Amino acid sequence: MTPTPDLRHRVVLFTEDDPMLLDSGGRLDHVEVAYETWGTLDADGTNAVFVCHALTGDSHATGTPDSPGWWETMIGPGRPVDTDRFFVVCPNLLGGCRGTTGPASVDPATGTPYGLDFPLLTVRDFVTVHRRLARHLGIDRVLAAIGGSLGGMQALQWALDAPTEVGRAVVIAASSRLSAQNIAFSAVARSAIMRDPEFADGRYPEGGGPRTGLAIARMMAHITYLSEQAMAEKFGRRFQDSEEPRHRFGVDFAVESYLEHQGQTFLDRFDALSYLYLTRSLDYFDCFADPTATHALARSADPTRFLVVSFDSDWRFATTHSRRIVRELERARVPVSFREVASPHGHDSFLLDNADYLDTVAAFLDQAAEGIGTAGGHDAT
Amino acid sequence: MTPTPDLRHRVVLFTEDDPMLLDSGGRLDHVEVAYETWGTLDADGTNAVFVCHALTGDSHATGTPDSPGWWETMIGPGRPVDTDRFFVVCPNLLGGCRGTTGPASVDPATGTPYGLDFPLLTVRDFVTVHRRLARHLGIDRVLAAIGGSLGGMQALQWALDAPTEVGRAVVIAASSRLSAQNIAFSAVARSAIMRDPEFADGRYPEGGGPRTGLAIARMMAHITYLSEQAMAEKFGRRFQDSEEPRHRFGVDFAVESYLEHQGQTFLDRFDALSYLYLTRSLDYFDCFADPTATHALARSADPTRFLVVSFDSDWRFATTHSRRIVRELERARVPVSFREVASPHGHDSFLLDNADYLDTVAAFLDQAAEGIGTAGGHDAT
Repeated sequence: MTPTPDLRHRVVLFTEDDPMLLDSGGRLDHVEVAYETWGTLDADGTNAVFVCHALTGDSHATGTPDSPGWWETMIGPGRPVDTDRFFVVCPNLLGGCRGTTGPASVDPATGTPYGLDFPLLTVRDFVTVHRRLARHLGIDRVLAAIGGSLGGMQALQWALDAPTEVGRAVVIAASSRLSAQNIAFSAVARSAIMRDPEFADGRYPEGGGPRTGLAIARMMAHITYLSEQAMAEKFGRRFQDSEEPRHRFGVDFAVESYLEHQGQTFLDRFDALSYLYLTRSLDYFDCFADPTATHALARSADPTRFLVVSFDSDWRFATTHSRRIVRELERARVPVSFREVASPHGHDSFLLDNADYLDTVAAFLDQAAEGIGTAGGHDAT
Repeated sequence: MTPTPDLRHRVVLFTEDDPMLLDSGGRLDHVEVAYETWGTLDADGTNAVFVCHALTGDSHATGTPDSPGWWETMIGPGRPVDTDRFFVVCPNLLGGCRGTTGPASVDPATGTPYGLDFPLLTVRDFVTVHRRLARHLGIDRVLAAIGGSLGGMQALQWALDAPTEVGRAVVIAASSRLSAQNIAFSAVARSAIMRDPEFADGRYPEGGGPRTGLAIARMMAHITYLSEQAMAEKFGRRFQDSEEPRHRFGVDFAVESYLEHQGQTFLDRFDALSYLYLTRSLDYFDCFADPTATHALARSADPTRFLVVSFDSDWRFATTHSRRIVRELERARVPVSFREVASPHGHDSFLLDNADYLDTVAAFLDQAAEGIGTAGGHDAT
């Protein structure tokens, strides 16, 4: 891993005197969160948009031309999450590896990194940290929580757990519970990491670790992020460095070169233990399993309003996953808009420039923005 | 690997004096083939059905209740490939690891196993061996060549290369060229094997080798053999040994247990080098790339008749792959029947009991059987 990037903010949110109580019953005595913000919080603290990142994302959702973020299409001046109007917050996830407490952090009880002694987390735990961070920033209620994939699950869980704290939730390319196939891919990825001899039961040195296993995990995951059609259009059966097949085991097809590159560059920015922890949280996520899950939302005088978005070529979290979320919310009589967006790019579509998609989110957030104390009209279309 | 099973027959088909010339221009000075047969060859040698196995299959296509084969649904007395009427032949593939010459065989030039010095093979090379074996058995023209997946590709290639030798070709759940996504999965599987330190550049001892990498490869491949729906029905989010989640990294979901089992049992019957070689042959297969590919077929006075079958839930080689084969054959004015069969079981459907599918194949082979010198009518339906 490269050194943690320069983060704008760090804050200790839980301490031994005020520990974080986990969904599992466990606790963490020290939770530090790295986060970034853009724009300015209103005097009354009502214009905050909270961005939840996906599995391998980080707090750097938007940046500068020299250091772009992972969601430039969505966030920035005049973009749907308009940093001229909104105060935008994006923290690194608990359990991650970019400055927020995770398995590579030092366990205060032992003075050494947690490794596999770090507790397994749930999406509710991620949300517990988000809620504490929001309060720390003087935000009682976010105008909106927004995220794609695992990020969307956090927005959804937050609204279920504390509907008065979330004005709107934008749940993109997400799922309320993974399918057997989703879990299967995740299980193979974790096997590749944990069986790598360099994994050493999670006690590998910083900069070392199961590089082979993590690269394999990333390469495989990448296949599920793209549609078959997108892969066909982008690579087809093209060869990387020649017109003719070279008949060898090394890289020959362009798609092989792409995957190798994805696997290798991932090693510089992500930690294997975080990959294990975050994917396992995804596997166990099943936010409507408890029959009372929607009660708080359903009973709220001013419930969270939802926008659920899927992409028609996404086969990681296909539209059926989004429809299940919509159905559960509608059953609880919660206001929810649903849009399946046409896009050839599969699961990754949520990161890409797609006018239908971005306009849909912009319009939904514009409605939320009506009445906040900022200078008026903004034309999102 | 466990010892090679007791094979009924072995034969040396190519020797230093009569070497096998490879599609690549290379040669093999010693090619031995292990194969099994069922039924009796007619005096005029016209009732042979040649079964081509898929990636990880072997010659044991059908057997006894104590030792069943991998295609019991298709082959046997009264089955579509009726061993009471047909002489059925199934060899192990060149490059495989079940008795036929492959990368684990001893290189006569060095006296040590080939390892990665074994030449890369094409599907045409597999067919070259099939053709020689048929001649060795006294078969000038097979009544039919049949196979699923990589087996179907061999049947197709055989008919393209030597249409007078193949009366009918049954091409099931196959492809004329892999998609970028297909190649991508294959590339990640090979990476897992070749980056496993135990791979040792292919010079691992018998019984050793890249067990982790090979298990990972197999687990991942297995996901692509099942449809998402089949996985959901078979496993869903069920836990393996409890009613409640146990929140741990070890196996907890039933689908994890299944994949672990698939990965582990595969180690006992397959060799990592053969996995590399056979998957790479698949990647490069592109049988219609040469614009003259169908000329021999098109000009034949009695061209091979084709049955092309796909399964609607197969996402490894979806119906689009089969349709491409049909289109190319029709363009050459070759007689071809096409059937997309409804099945929830994905790519693996070709191995399963599905009446529509089996009846379709039976009827097609019945037509072929009319006029061969065996006792007449057989009701396949």
